[in-house]
Amino acid sequence: MKKVDILISEVGPRDGLQSLAGIMPTAAKKQWINALAAAGIQEIEVGSFVPASVLPQLADTAELVAYGRTIAGLQIAVLVPNLRGAQGAIAAGAHKISIPLSVSEAHSLRNVKRTHAQMLDEIAAIAELVQAQPSATRPYFEVGLSTAFGCSLQGPVPELLVVQLAEAALKAGCDEVGLSDTTGSANPVQLRRLITQVWSAVGKDKLCGVHLHNTRGQGLANALAAIEMGITTVDASMGGIGGCPAAPGASGNIVTEDLVFLLEAMGLETGINFEALCAARAVFADAMPGTELYGFTPLAGLPKGFEIN
Amino acid sequence: MKKVDILISEVGPRDGLQSLAGIMPTAAKKQWINALAAAGIQEIEVGSFVPASVLPQLADTAELVAYGRTIAGLQIAVLVPNLRGAQGAIAAGAHKISIPLSVSEAHSLRNVKRTHAQMLDEIAAIAELVQAQPSATRPYFEVGLSTAFGCSLQGPVPELLVVQLAEAALKAGCDEVGLSDTTGSANPVQLRRLITQVWSAVGKDKLCGVHLHNTRGQGLANALAAIEMGITTVDASMGGIGGCPAAPGASGNIVTEDLVFLLEAMGLETGINFEALCAARAVFADAMPGTELYGFTPLAGLPKGFEIN
Repeated sequence: MKKVDILISEVGPRDGLQSLAGIMPTAAKKQWINALAAAGIQEIEVGSFVPASVLPQLADTAELVAYGRTIAGLQIAVLVPNLRGAQGAIAAGAHKISIPLSVSEAHSLRNVKRTHAQMLDEIAAIAELVQAQPSATRPYFEVGLSTAFGCSLQGPVPELLVVQLAEAALKAGCDEVGLSDTTGSANPVQLRRLITQVWSAVGKDKLCGVHLHNTRGQGLANALAAIEMGITTVDASMGGIGGCPAAPGASGNIVTEDLVFLLEAMGLETGINFEALCAARAVFADAMPGTELYGFTPLAGLPKGFEIN
Repeated sequence: MKKVDILISEVGPRDGLQSLAGIMPTAAKKQWINALAAAGIQEIEVGSFVPASVLPQLADTAELVAYGRTIAGLQIAVLVPNLRGAQGAIAAGAHKISIPLSVSEAHSLRNVKRTHAQMLDEIAAIAELVQAQPSATRPYFEVGLSTAFGCSLQGPVPELLVVQLAEAALKAGCDEVGLSDTTGSANPVQLRRLITQVWSAVGKDKLCGVHLHNTRGQGLANALAAIEMGITTVDASMGGIGGCPAAPGASGNIVTEDLVFLLEAMGLETGINFEALCAARAVFADAMPGTELYGFTPLAGLPKGFEIN
């Protein structure tokens, strides 16, 4: 991979598509993934290894992993809810596996039907499986601490619990933990406090990424706070697709296009070409007409005289 | 006025409405201003003293100033393009007068048909008029350095020129300067650098406010950078109304509703009640159906368990 200051991990094909009612055809997904990679995106979460009955939108994940692996320099990430999903991800050849560990146990039970203790067992089993792979094909294994900034079911979550679960997940054998603002509740002060606490407990190299939602429009402000602390991986979604069905008009992840402008304008290299990124947006829009796309920079264009790459 | 950490100056009735094709009836504007004040907004820019032939949307500004003055604790601000506008503003009883001084001379010539030198003469004449008022009714006089972060006509603007114009405007007799990202080009690094430079030249008490546009979705990230440096007044527009006719879908000012959530979540008091603010949004929406309203927090609601005021 090309050296960048901030790695933007594009999660639109997973986190975005799973929230949409329509199913994007596999051929169109491949075209989109290809266009994203051509724009300079270095990591794409292409899907989830969940039963097709649960998320028919992502039923072609294994095929997309195989396709993505043919694109030079592209890191292929997938989400898995459990050991079985991890088995599928490893069989398909994913470079990176993420599993959500909800800090809100209410959310964990709703999302993956497991308590914290059960999820930690699952994480240990996946870690064992990952470690058993030959080093050349061993995937990177991350635990995403979801609802780390609050939960729409239980409300605030104890910060100490975030730290404890980060420690427990790493002890169970994952490579890294991430902090996820699943419900778009985070604010910059809280984000800094929580990152500091987790770093203090597990070390800075064990928490490098954040997954922020733009549910209340705070996404880029939170991203700014995180990257200025030293976070180096930020998840984002093309056009901010995704979002919460319970909050109409509330977008999903932070918008990749606007995040790229933010970072590049600040002098932080993302390796991404803005015009090519807009071309990838057009590929998505053509394949999924009627999907509401967020993001202002694609509409306004870059400022006059501004250059990226 | 109630003591707040950050003063949100609501510019929707001026900067928002001037960009809309439709004209909001005066009675509805009064209802909206009243609802905004009831929500805890302490400063509202109610209009501009420009000829009705230029901006028919704002032809009732004098009446709105008079109305706004009847609301206890509310600071009534207006924009003026020249001395004649300032005369109208003072006659109407505005508490605060702002005049734009475009750092981009190309923009200045397009916007107010005057060079920098001509604008500085105008500012000196207004300052003289302001100083001649009895102290009890003397308005506060601010110069807004527009296009301070870049211009859609000329591209980048020299930072030294921003500093020089800030000094010149203060020398010409205004009370304070503000920095305006008229075209939504700013980024947090540039914003901090420019604020530091202007403060260094004119003193921190002579630059307290920023006017940020969300044209490229960077508004709240820039607001975060500004307030954490010590900027204490932030302009915002309800529903982000306004925007640039040349960039469809690119919103105008930063969204008041999302800004309030950002600040209050960070523990900074704005004095604004969020539910009442949403009620003011409804007043606007009822009066101006079909106007695209931005902002995510009103749709998502506050996070579960989150309290403002």
